[in-house]
Amino acid sequence: MFEENSFKDGGLSRLLVHDSPYFKILNFNFKAGQELPIHSHDIEGQLSIAVLEGSGEFLGENDTTIPAQPGDILISEISEPHGLRAETDMRVLVTIAPPI
Amino acid sequence: MFEENSFKDGGLSRLLVHDSPYFKILNFNFKAGQELPIHSHDIEGQLSIAVLEGSGEFLGENDTTIPAQPGDILISEISEPHGLRAETDMRVLVTIAPPI
Repeated sequence: MFEENSFKDGGLSRLLVHDSPYFKILNFNFKAGQELPIHSHDIEGQLSIAVLEGSGEFLGENDTTIPAQPGDILISEISEPHGLRAETDMRVLVTIAPPI
Repeated sequence: MFEENSFKDGGLSRLLVHDSPYFKILNFNFKAGQELPIHSHDIEGQLSIAVLEGSGEFLGENDTTIPAQPGDILISEISEPHGLRAETDMRVLVTIAPPI
């Protein structure tokens, strides 16, 4: 995955790792300063965001932030606002179940 | 997660990260030489094994091995034989959907 997905200037670089009826797995790479803006979808299910490399902040409702470092995982309802801001270059793994 | 789960002498050290109707997430830490023996469950669904740190081999049927390094992810049917052998100390993230 590290070889297949790089970093982009315009915004996060997205790689679809797996998609099945059970879950969807994506790798997002962020350059320092890039972000996945807070968003949500009115769909049942949950997602996990696992930090593989780099550090930043998970973003939540009402300007809430949670430190995000390698080994940290955010679990969120798909319908709950969530996002991520990279302070250094970051690689994260996103798993969505059931898949959107 | 890195602070909450360490390494054990007797075998892999297991941490339940999350369990919900949508997926189960576990962190397994292996000392060099430890393994998750090949196994399978006769249940519908899939699992992913993402390597966070260290290197080793994913194990499959008929002595098949696949190199496992940070950024590598194995996707397997739950009913398909799968396992892992650590060559160095390893931390991996396992996601099972639907949860067993």
